[in-house]
Amino acid sequence: MKQSDQATRSRLEDLTRAECLQLLGYGSFVGRVGFTHDSRPMILPVNYLLDGDAIVFRTAGDTVLNALAGQDVAFEVDDNRPLGHSGWSVVVQGPIQSISDMQEIDGLERGPLRSWARRDADHWLRISIDTISGRRLPES
Amino acid sequence: MKQSDQATRSRLEDLTRAECLQLLGYGSFVGRVGFTHDSRPMILPVNYLLDGDAIVFRTAGDTVLNALAGQDVAFEVDDNRPLGHSGWSVVVQGPIQSISDMQEIDGLERGPLRSWARRDADHWLRISIDTISGRRLPES
Repeated sequence: MKQSDQATRSRLEDLTRAECLQLLGYGSFVGRVGFTHDSRPMILPVNYLLDGDAIVFRTAGDTVLNALAGQDVAFEVDDNRPLGHSGWSVVVQGPIQSISDMQEIDGLERGPLRSWARRDADHWLRISIDTISGRRLPES
Repeated sequence: MKQSDQATRSRLEDLTRAECLQLLGYGSFVGRVGFTHDSRPMILPVNYLLDGDAIVFRTAGDTVLNALAGQDVAFEVDDNRPLGHSGWSVVVQGPIQSISDMQEIDGLERGPLRSWARRDADHWLRISIDTISGRRLPES
């Protein structure tokens, strides 16, 4: 398909990696973790923080999310303006790992990230960014 | 863990199936499809419609989403109010199928659902609801 054909059919514009990271850092405070659970795709929302070039979130010890350490996951944020049919989305894919370094945890706990859902969210996890992509939908 | 312990630790309240369906029907117009692509979890947002007791969305013929027919997927919607650290989320799991009945497609095309992203979104897909769950986070 010619580029010109594609352009007339899709209103989506690809974002650069820098734009994706900026939106992850400043565009939202709720993201969604996509993972495989009991052999089926699953999605759960979390409060998160962009920490350097990784996604960090916290959860309680007894959660499905805490059990994901070692798996590959997806992480998505988006926003939209219904009136203009516009918006953006960013999605990351990468491995998720428990953060165990006490000094690092200490620093994170002094930071801004709180879990809205759990008061006992004392387990920290990091999603490393293997792939990142994003798309913008301009006002129509 | 005793119920009372759990209650003090998690602020999340489970939604009934009826509440989940009501939020899917009236609470949002953008949802997120979670699926496995190249053996890795992936998430993409779509405009959707609750049609009876199934999720319906439209996409173009050349998309990753259109190629999902026959797979199991997750579908998630959520909303939040940052000031009160409150919100809700609903997640569905089930098989996704192409809609091929021309009479059904004709009816859907006369309905309200448009794709914000693609003008050529003439492929319709349905996610049947095998499992549905939702959670509410009241104002703190």
